[in-house]
Amino acid sequence: MPKFIKNISKTISYPPGTIISVGEEKAQKAKLSIIDYSAEQFEEKNIQDPQVCLSFRDKPTVTWLNIDGINDVETLEAIGKCFDLHPLTLEDIANTGQRPKYEDFGEYLFVVLKMLYYNQNQDDIIAEQVSLIIGTNFVISFQEKEGDVFNMIRERLRSAKGRIRKMGADYLAYALIDAIVDNYFLILEKMGDEIEVMEEELVSNPMPGTLKTIHNLKQDTIFLRKSVWPLREVVNSLERGESKLIKKTTHIFLRDVYDHTIQVIDSIETFRDMVSGMLDIYLSSISNRMNEVMKVLTIIATIFIPLTFIAGIYGMNFNPEASSWNMPELNWRFGYFLSLGAMLAVGLVMILYFKRKKWL
Amino acid sequence: MPKFIKNISKTISYPPGTIISVGEEKAQKAKLSIIDYSAEQFEEKNIQDPQVCLSFRDKPTVTWLNIDGINDVETLEAIGKCFDLHPLTLEDIANTGQRPKYEDFGEYLFVVLKMLYYNQNQDDIIAEQVSLIIGTNFVISFQEKEGDVFNMIRERLRSAKGRIRKMGADYLAYALIDAIVDNYFLILEKMGDEIEVMEEELVSNPMPGTLKTIHNLKQDTIFLRKSVWPLREVVNSLERGESKLIKKTTHIFLRDVYDHTIQVIDSIETFRDMVSGMLDIYLSSISNRMNEVMKVLTIIATIFIPLTFIAGIYGMNFNPEASSWNMPELNWRFGYFLSLGAMLAVGLVMILYFKRKKWL
Amino acid sequence: MPKFIKNISKTISYPPGTIISVGEEKAQKAKLSIIDYSAEQFEEKNIQDPQVCLSFRDKPTVTWLNIDGINDVETLEAIGKCFDLHPLTLEDIANTGQRPKYEDFGEYLFVVLKMLYYNQNQDDIIAEQVSLIIGTNFVISFQEKEGDVFNMIRERLRSAKGRIRKMGADYLAYALIDAIVDNYFLILEKMGDEIEVMEEELVSNPMPGTLKTIHNLKQDTIFLRKSVWPLREVVNSLERGESKLIKKTTHIFLRDVYDHTIQVIDSIETFRDMVSGMLDIYLSSISNRMNEVMKVLTIIATIFIPLTFIAGIYGMNFNPEASSWNMPELNWRFGYFLSLGAMLAVGLVMILYFKRKKWL
Amino acid sequence: MPKFIKNISKTISYPPGTIISVGEEKAQKAKLSIIDYSAEQFEEKNIQDPQVCLSFRDKPTVTWLNIDGINDVETLEAIGKCFDLHPLTLEDIANTGQRPKYEDFGEYLFVVLKMLYYNQNQDDIIAEQVSLIIGTNFVISFQEKEGDVFNMIRERLRSAKGRIRKMGADYLAYALIDAIVDNYFLILEKMGDEIEVMEEELVSNPMPGTLKTIHNLKQDTIFLRKSVWPLREVVNSLERGESKLIKKTTHIFLRDVYDHTIQVIDSIETFRDMVSGMLDIYLSSISNRMNEVMKVLTIIATIFIPLTFIAGIYGMNFNPEASSWNMPELNWRFGYFLSLGAMLAVGLVMILYFKRKKWL
Amino acid sequence: MPKFIKNISKTISYPPGTIISVGEEKAQKAKLSIIDYSAEQFEEKNIQDPQVCLSFRDKPTVTWLNIDGINDVETLEAIGKCFDLHPLTLEDIANTGQRPKYEDFGEYLFVVLKMLYYNQNQDDIIAEQVSLIIGTNFVISFQEKEGDVFNMIRERLRSAKGRIRKMGADYLAYALIDAIVDNYFLILEKMGDEIEVMEEELVSNPMPGTLKTIHNLKQDTIFLRKSVWPLREVVNSLERGESKLIKKTTHIFLRDVYDHTIQVIDSIETFRDMVSGMLDIYLSSISNRMNEVMKVLTIIATIFIPLTFIAGIYGMNFNPEASSWNMPELNWRFGYFLSLGAMLAVGLVMILYFKRKKWL
Repeated sequence: MPKFIKNISKTISYPPGTIISVGEEKAQKAKLSIIDYSAEQFEEKNIQDPQVCLSFRDKPTVTWLNIDGINDVETLEAIGKCFDLHPLTLEDIANTGQRPKYEDFGEYLFVVLKMLYYNQNQDDIIAEQVSLIIGTNFVISFQEKEGDVFNMIRERLRSAKGRIRKMGADYLAYALIDAIVDNYFLILEKMGDEIEVMEEELVSNPMPGTLKTIHNLKQDTIFLRKSVWPLREVVNSLERGESKLIKKTTHIFLRDVYDHTIQVIDSIETFRDMVSGMLDIYLSSISNRMNEVMKVLTIIATIFIPLTFIAGIYGMNFNPEASSWNMPELNWRFGYFLSLGAMLAVGLVMILYFKRKKWL
Repeated sequence: MPKFIKNISKTISYPPGTIISVGEEKAQKAKLSIIDYSAEQFEEKNIQDPQVCLSFRDKPTVTWLNIDGINDVETLEAIGKCFDLHPLTLEDIANTGQRPKYEDFGEYLFVVLKMLYYNQNQDDIIAEQVSLIIGTNFVISFQEKEGDVFNMIRERLRSAKGRIRKMGADYLAYALIDAIVDNYFLILEKMGDEIEVMEEELVSNPMPGTLKTIHNLKQDTIFLRKSVWPLREVVNSLERGESKLIKKTTHIFLRDVYDHTIQVIDSIETFRDMVSGMLDIYLSSISNRMNEVMKVLTIIATIFIPLTFIAGIYGMNFNPEASSWNMPELNWRFGYFLSLGAMLAVGLVMILYFKRKKWL
Repeated sequence: MPKFIKNISKTISYPPGTIISVGEEKAQKAKLSIIDYSAEQFEEKNIQDPQVCLSFRDKPTVTWLNIDGINDVETLEAIGKCFDLHPLTLEDIANTGQRPKYEDFGEYLFVVLKMLYYNQNQDDIIAEQVSLIIGTNFVISFQEKEGDVFNMIRERLRSAKGRIRKMGADYLAYALIDAIVDNYFLILEKMGDEIEVMEEELVSNPMPGTLKTIHNLKQDTIFLRKSVWPLREVVNSLERGESKLIKKTTHIFLRDVYDHTIQVIDSIETFRDMVSGMLDIYLSSISNRMNEVMKVLTIIATIFIPLTFIAGIYGMNFNPEASSWNMPELNWRFGYFLSLGAMLAVGLVMILYFKRKKWL
Repeated sequence: MPKFIKNISKTISYPPGTIISVGEEKAQKAKLSIIDYSAEQFEEKNIQDPQVCLSFRDKPTVTWLNIDGINDVETLEAIGKCFDLHPLTLEDIANTGQRPKYEDFGEYLFVVLKMLYYNQNQDDIIAEQVSLIIGTNFVISFQEKEGDVFNMIRERLRSAKGRIRKMGADYLAYALIDAIVDNYFLILEKMGDEIEVMEEELVSNPMPGTLKTIHNLKQDTIFLRKSVWPLREVVNSLERGESKLIKKTTHIFLRDVYDHTIQVIDSIETFRDMVSGMLDIYLSSISNRMNEVMKVLTIIATIFIPLTFIAGIYGMNFNPEASSWNMPELNWRFGYFLSLGAMLAVGLVMILYFKRKKWL
Repeated sequence: MPKFIKNISKTISYPPGTIISVGEEKAQKAKLSIIDYSAEQFEEKNIQDPQVCLSFRDKPTVTWLNIDGINDVETLEAIGKCFDLHPLTLEDIANTGQRPKYEDFGEYLFVVLKMLYYNQNQDDIIAEQVSLIIGTNFVISFQEKEGDVFNMIRERLRSAKGRIRKMGADYLAYALIDAIVDNYFLILEKMGDEIEVMEEELVSNPMPGTLKTIHNLKQDTIFLRKSVWPLREVVNSLERGESKLIKKTTHIFLRDVYDHTIQVIDSIETFRDMVSGMLDIYLSSISNRMNEVMKVLTIIATIFIPLTFIAGIYGMNFNPEASSWNMPELNWRFGYFLSLGAMLAVGLVMILYFKRKKWL
């Protein structure tokens, strides 16, 4: 639950544009790393002072500034000043409760995305907010914590693999978004595996605990939907947007990301259908099993009740001496065995009847 | 229920534009307070006579007139005359059954919103209608009762914190709407907490009373949806509207409110999904538990029924003296203990069988 | 059911434009009443001969012709000729199975509405079709039966209250539509009360009959939806329509009616959600109660079955004289009381066990 | 089921435009009848040779060619050549698995509709495909079998009733479509009656067979929806279409058909809601009844089990002679009647308890 | 499950435009076959070296290059170079996890489709990705494996049947798409048959295994929907697209394919409704049957319990010698038979009562 509503109440009742970090950890010094490149040249370094950015800002090369840690209000403000960011943009970067969105501020584009991880320990999906600022020749990425899915891109930049070094800031932004969306497929595969395992289990051996697991899977699909649906709009806006910051040649790549987003949404909707189908099957499996138990038990009881009745009859104390009409069977030679035989017969007839009716 | 349909019948059958207060309390004198400010100057006072407004109306400074109490027809009419409000506007202000809406009357914009409170005593969400009139250099806000979420804004105005004193009436209106929407997050957090508590309870200890609570949560989400969905349209109309009363610089702030509204709607929809998921889990938990009870009880009965049958057999009165074939066991040396042993054996076999079938 | 599909089959297989009354009552002479007014002048009278209308038609004053009874084909045709109505219009007026609609015939506007009543005797909602013809300076209203919700408007016209006498035919049409829509709120309040009562009853004392009532409420909401949803379009078309017959000043009033319509739809949707929620609660209440019954009964049975088994043991006839190993307890001094005590102990243990498991 | 997917596989794997009849009957010679009329003149005859059409084609009078039987490939091709029909049109006419559609081929309009019948014997709805070709001054109608709903129109043409003889081919096409749509109301009435009967039965006497009937009703609504929903688009396209073949004066009549179509759709949706409501009621009625049975039976068992226990106690064989503590009641004077009295008392107390708890 | 998410994870983390085959089989040499034709001329051959294509590329005749096997990265790249394909196109061709899509690259159109097969052995639907490149006078088709639904078209090309040899590359592309869509009807018929069989079985003899089958049918409809819904958009885009590569005369044929797609979607939606209806019926059938079992068993138990009670009474040991009030019946002449008669009477009364209540 907490993952749905993140301490939003902290941020209200401040003037708009105030940067309030909503994270639970204490504000730590943000880590800044800069990559500056062109087709010919490449430079990478970690920096301490946001002011350093100024020197990169106006160079014709493409600059990628990555910030890990968004609780550091001072750094955020320094970067905001350096790159002329709107106060509302800074507020949105710090407030991790945003849904994915795209805003065109003219001088720069602001994109909020959700990076998803599978938490191995708690078997849980975790979302981290990634904000991107796309300018003429720079991209700034803000992340909540260190560790991301961008290493592949750094590697490509360093080794000048593919066309990335020859393209502009918009292509870099595309590459970052693509890396995040591609990562969703890993989540989907994990979920797909889990669903497959569950389906097997459902048919072979449904347990009360299964309900909890299905419920968790359902929550996960709800959570995924909430993160991915708005993403579709975001990528679509980027592709169709008329911002001059996105070059024409990049559009075709963004359309590719868009296709991937649709594929992700498609799979989530399919998972949803499947999970709700699993709930139906689980419920009817459980109820089938319970009915099976009740049926067998009732049958045992039903067979013995008439037998007990017969035994009850010959347990009556009518006095044979008072009248020869009273329970003459008691004095018959084979009375006892006849009565046992009668019981056996009744029991067999009932079992046959049940078998024929297919209740056994 | 009464919160869904407020004494609307009172207002029908009057000519349109007639002001009828639908509140249940007696009409009380409305309380008027005025705040008049510009970047340099600030004035705040409570007034008695609505006519006083006239003097503020044409000043170039921004004037915020707040009215607490909308049952006071006379005052409403006086204000209406003073600011040239359309009779239908006044009717809508007095009639608290409105859904959030936005209307452009050319000379002024009319916005109806719902302010939501959590009633601590009854654990209930309460809605209060807030109407805003946005003019060239004035904003009028109408509230049902004293007490609101605007104190933060008054404070900012007084202390000239942020940019609010430097902006016009449209920015003030934005600030008021923002305060109302931000307050929704508090409601959402409360509901989120309640849902979280419920989910724990559901799994660990479902009780019949739980159903009532889930039902109440569901009603609350229905109520919230009804209040918030139209709000989206309202804020969107304000942002996209072509009224000259909203300056361009304010649009970006309204877009921010719009984003918040979408976030609120998103969360409500998520809550809805979760609450209906909880109902499913509750129902199957209850039925699981009941089945558990029935099963154990039936098993006990089933074990003893064959045992009782055996006891019944040796309670029969076949006469051993009439024939040595009759119940010879009765005269065996260890007949009694053999029969007890047989019962024990049957009982154990059944228990083992049940265990193996995992019914126990 | 009959209220959903009204003898439509009667009307098919006639050439289009043929007036066929579908009512079940015999065609009666329609009652015509005319109100003619301007700001200064007012005239009201009942007329017999539709031809009289001709004299009013071309007067600059506003004329309101009201017809009660639409089975009178002759009168309909006479009015049609007098006001140049299209044959299809007349067919639609006579055929009460129409859904609310709006048509612009150039010379006049044709509006079909549903007037709703609560039938006190059968606790049922009844719909009556009201058709309006809006011309340059006349309005014609057709009703199925005498008795309507327009008296308030007649009174306002007579007493020249409000602005109605100063406005044109379009404002009169607005007033009539407004009266009909306002009347829906009465229906909604009645339904709201009924739902509230039902909800109380559901929790405190669910009865099999409740199902029938919930079903009826559901049918009522389906019926209301069917009548009100198309109304929205109708009023919207009137407001946005480009017909010159509707003056600009009337648009704002029509927008007000539109808002009311949306409010009505909103409430119906809320009722729908609540009624379907009630069905869930009813079903689980009933099943909870039944389970409660079954549980207690099963517990009683389960307690006594082992006790009866003990009694059965000491009812066995093993012969103590044949062997001192046979049922020595029977000859013990306190054998009887010990056995009774054992039974009591078993019973108590079971009760305690059930209590601890919270099954009792 | 077969009515949903008609032997479509037969038609695939042929080049497009190949005419393949999918009907199950052998191809029979099609029957052609021609009606040629203008306001003054009327001619009607059956023809054998499609070539005869050529003489009618270029006459200024309106020509209605009706073909019964679409398995006759030769005739279809002859007509196609005669009226210059596109091969795909002919393919669609022969392939009865089409959904209702409208296509504008410039020279002519092609409309596919479904004519619905109630099969009296099997209590089933049957669909027959009717294709219309609307040209400048001719209409061609193709039907699967003889027998249709057009007799009323033929009669009107013969007797020159109404305006039909004075209008063009487009009005004739309208009349044919109107006849088909009007016929739907008959189906709706039949279904409405059936639903009404079912609802009565549901409450008074639910039977297992009822489930099958509800299921059939549901299938029928699915089938109707499938046939009627696309019809809406078709009629709308005809009305809004910019084809010169439809005159302006005919538009108002097509709008009338459109209204009827909406009414039909409305009713089908209502039926759907009602049928699914019936399923809910049926299920809970059945389960209520079953619970009722189980309850009464369990109560009987529960009352007798404690009584049997008491009887069991006094059936124990503790030896009164061994000790005067052993079962002294057996020797009491009124021991027997006291025990019977105790049983009676226990039984009555339980009955009273059950009554008070309202379980009886 | 694996069919929903195909090893997508393999493809992520590569630069965009990298061709990665996701199939599980080892990359095999692709098989290339070329058909080159015009109205007068026809040439067909298998080729090894993709370079051969170059000679065909610029000929005015229509060239159809078919590639079986998309794991062969080298061949793909060679073809890509030869026909100037965008790297993203090649990536999409190799990655079989695409959803159907249409992209206009100016010089060529790129279409991805799903070819569906019914796997006879596993009773499962299998999807194979088919990619089409449509250029000015060539069509390239990529398939995962050998064997396709295009043989009919090859035959038509060879024999110059129909108009296909006279038309351009766009018509060929249409023919290929049409063949794929037509093949869907075969799948639909198979599913239709299966559903029909299931429906019969459901009513006559529901079994626990039925649930699994219904679940599989549901999965199949989900899978089909996922494949076919985007197809609709694809064909619509092709038809409405403004690409000059599609000639006007081909539009009408594409509209025909579009109609077929709609028909397929229609049928899938109908199947969905039916399958979910079947689940309802299955569940209530199973529960009906189980209730039937429980009822009969409970009735047997209920009849014998009072009888056993009577037998228990006369098994009590009250001492007739101690008092003549004690169990005098035991010494009556016909006491035994009277008691048996009483039991019979009680049993009969209960059976009659059950019969009258229609529980038996």
